[in-house]
Amino acid sequence: MTASPLDLPAAPLPAVRPSVALLTDRYELTMLQAALADGTAHRHCVFEVFTRRLPPGRRYGVLAGTGRVLEALPHFRFGDAELAYLERADVVDARTLDFLAGYRFTGSVSGYAEGEAFFPGSPVLQVEGSFAEAVLLETLVLSILNFDSAIASAASRMTSAAVDRPILEMGARRANEQAAVAAARAAVIAGFAGTSNLEAGMRYGLETIGTAAHAFTLLHDDERSAFESQVAALGKGTTLLVDTYDVRRGVETAVDVAGTGLGAVRLDSGDLGVQAVEVRKQLDDLGAHRTRIVVTSDLDEYAIAALAAAPVDVYGVGTSLVTGSGAPTCGMVYKLVAREDASGVLKPVAKASANKITSGGRKAAARRYGDDGRAVEEVLVIGPEELVSVWTPDGEDLRPLLVPLVVEGAVDSRWVGAYGVQNAVATHRHSRAELPRGARRLSAGDPALPTTELRLG
Amino acid sequence: MTASPLDLPAAPLPAVRPSVALLTDRYELTMLQAALADGTAHRHCVFEVFTRRLPPGRRYGVLAGTGRVLEALPHFRFGDAELAYLERADVVDARTLDFLAGYRFTGSVSGYAEGEAFFPGSPVLQVEGSFAEAVLLETLVLSILNFDSAIASAASRMTSAAVDRPILEMGARRANEQAAVAAARAAVIAGFAGTSNLEAGMRYGLETIGTAAHAFTLLHDDERSAFESQVAALGKGTTLLVDTYDVRRGVETAVDVAGTGLGAVRLDSGDLGVQAVEVRKQLDDLGAHRTRIVVTSDLDEYAIAALAAAPVDVYGVGTSLVTGSGAPTCGMVYKLVAREDASGVLKPVAKASANKITSGGRKAAARRYGDDGRAVEEVLVIGPEELVSVWTPDGEDLRPLLVPLVVEGAVDSRWVGAYGVQNAVATHRHSRAELPRGARRLSAGDPALPTTELRLG
Repeated sequence: MTASPLDLPAAPLPAVRPSVALLTDRYELTMLQAALADGTAHRHCVFEVFTRRLPPGRRYGVLAGTGRVLEALPHFRFGDAELAYLERADVVDARTLDFLAGYRFTGSVSGYAEGEAFFPGSPVLQVEGSFAEAVLLETLVLSILNFDSAIASAASRMTSAAVDRPILEMGARRANEQAAVAAARAAVIAGFAGTSNLEAGMRYGLETIGTAAHAFTLLHDDERSAFESQVAALGKGTTLLVDTYDVRRGVETAVDVAGTGLGAVRLDSGDLGVQAVEVRKQLDDLGAHRTRIVVTSDLDEYAIAALAAAPVDVYGVGTSLVTGSGAPTCGMVYKLVAREDASGVLKPVAKASANKITSGGRKAAARRYGDDGRAVEEVLVIGPEELVSVWTPDGEDLRPLLVPLVVEGAVDSRWVGAYGVQNAVATHRHSRAELPRGARRLSAGDPALPTTELRLG
Repeated sequence: MTASPLDLPAAPLPAVRPSVALLTDRYELTMLQAALADGTAHRHCVFEVFTRRLPPGRRYGVLAGTGRVLEALPHFRFGDAELAYLERADVVDARTLDFLAGYRFTGSVSGYAEGEAFFPGSPVLQVEGSFAEAVLLETLVLSILNFDSAIASAASRMTSAAVDRPILEMGARRANEQAAVAAARAAVIAGFAGTSNLEAGMRYGLETIGTAAHAFTLLHDDERSAFESQVAALGKGTTLLVDTYDVRRGVETAVDVAGTGLGAVRLDSGDLGVQAVEVRKQLDDLGAHRTRIVVTSDLDEYAIAALAAAPVDVYGVGTSLVTGSGAPTCGMVYKLVAREDASGVLKPVAKASANKITSGGRKAAARRYGDDGRAVEEVLVIGPEELVSVWTPDGEDLRPLLVPLVVEGAVDSRWVGAYGVQNAVATHRHSRAELPRGARRLSAGDPALPTTELRLG
């Protein structure tokens, strides 16, 4: 039931999805129209994606969605259907439609590796190009990163709480149908062992799991017929759902039908901790010592932690995963931090109103380590563009966090498709392991790493 | 800024989206395999979608997504790519692949009209057909209805709180990119006046809105240049964002550039109530009496209600809308309630374990009205299949709630595309208006209508 890299398709699936260009807020296009008219559209710009704060009490965030942004980029094209709509709905003028017809992103993107932990202020993505090219991507980039990272951040707490027991993602029915695919992907990045979602399995080479629902038992004249049918079709290694009528009789029938080699039984209701103990004893008494117990039913990271002492082998998680366990979106923003002025010099810019003060200028970022090899600080490197843009750390206690993802329009294929997911799984495992021990506590607290500034020049 | 039915395209857009058949939990297919092998796959079944409870404190739910289910149905097909994956990943056997290759839904679907209020137990969708045909749709149906209804239910509270002021949907960046389209559609069904989401505009004929972000001001050498550019491109009726640097100076510059005919100013930070008063006074002092004030910045239904006395003209809502304002999914389930037995008779069935007791058998549903014309009860009609399936109310105090949506595989086109949305808008307006007055209170409370049973025979 664990994902194996060997099962992955050799390359990302061919992308036959239609244009994603209209998954965009209207104002990106009206800003473009005005900027094309006044000549500023071609000013070179740097946009940064970051969050001002983590959800209340959370100690770290997990970046996910980067690979999906890169997969979407070649599909961000305005074809005949999109242009006809924009003209018919009078969204932008003819000059802008001409520009959109030829649009492709030729700029560059850097960012944290997908799966990396992030903290307030971490520049998880930097998009660089003309204003026209880069501003159009704002909505899509944020949609993907905010949702996927919310799911991965919740999922990481769950896999932390489960320690070595596998968790399976089963939340499709409680999420938008396409969001469910992204959620399955994000869950696996954060350590889930598999998903019930077939589209996610196909698209990203994820392990898929699933056996039967209560409807299957109810379809049959009795529970025994249903179990016999399932074992005949799927083998003795299957998982039988034993709580449709009476759990004790269900377990008895299950072992009677499948024998002591039955793969697993699933409990989907009631007091799971108490039932797991009873069912384990019953299975052992019946000689089914290796039959595993799968529990599902509104689990979240707290419920998983509470079951640590119960004889549970596998967790299935749905609703709380796909809704971010109380934090269904991240607060990531896509901010213009530097742009060319009339004389062609890249200048830092920042909104300075009310209480939203942010440093202007491009940032570099690094994680600082203590003597024990654990991370101690998230370091944002600021200062003059000509220094920040070429900064590399001068000591071994700093690990630079920004990696190139798109160079002059060319997407680095290591970050997309099934391989991208596998890379992200490894990145997350490593990134989480080096956080301070307190980072994995479920109780509310401050971010596990303070964000500090290193000013150059 | 309100949606006009006259602006709608004459028919739903051509659906060029690829197969949605793998947006499905694996166990739907493994159950199918076992049922095909044992002969029960062809048993006639009735599945019902309902929720056991509303989110804590909510007084009513709003059904949304029905039109999207119907739009997806013709695309629930297993093509070469899907079948090749299922074979390669060894999900099901050859017999099942053969069945899937020929799959199309030929059964029938009834349900509440989209936009209708619902309560615990309301059978918002009934799917009837062979087990094989109907079980496969479970995941997709629930994904769509649970997400879309969560958004519409939150949106309805917001439009209630806003009374006659328009609300604009701007949440795409805080939702999965495809979920954002569904959220925009659900928001409009519950009374939002428009959306920033262009894809939703194109697909469902929704009014789209949007002008400029802080990045546009920062792109320019100063605020005045940015405003001049925007007014030149979009006209004086545009909305200028005045809080990039200093609101007071921003408003002054805005009216100086656009004149007193300026359409609106937008405030996106700070204490919106206080600022709205100050800005209104400043606009009036400058003679810009008809310039409107748009406020955005983490609004939810409570913040909207708190601004009732402030001189605000339009609300923009993002995060709280697309995350269901604390209830990001509904708890709708897709349950087998009746199925043919070995002798060909349709028998009621129900899971009966732990504390999940549900009545078996197909239900009819109606809303009962009091003498003042307001709804007083949600009535579930239960009893023998032969009576329930043909039930009609015998008094004028009962309005039947189930309408035919799909008849023997043929989708009723009134419920899909832009017209479907317009119908749902009207349904919701009417449905909400006839709820008891207390239903629209924002404070936590019990469901506005009790669910009662009317037993036939």
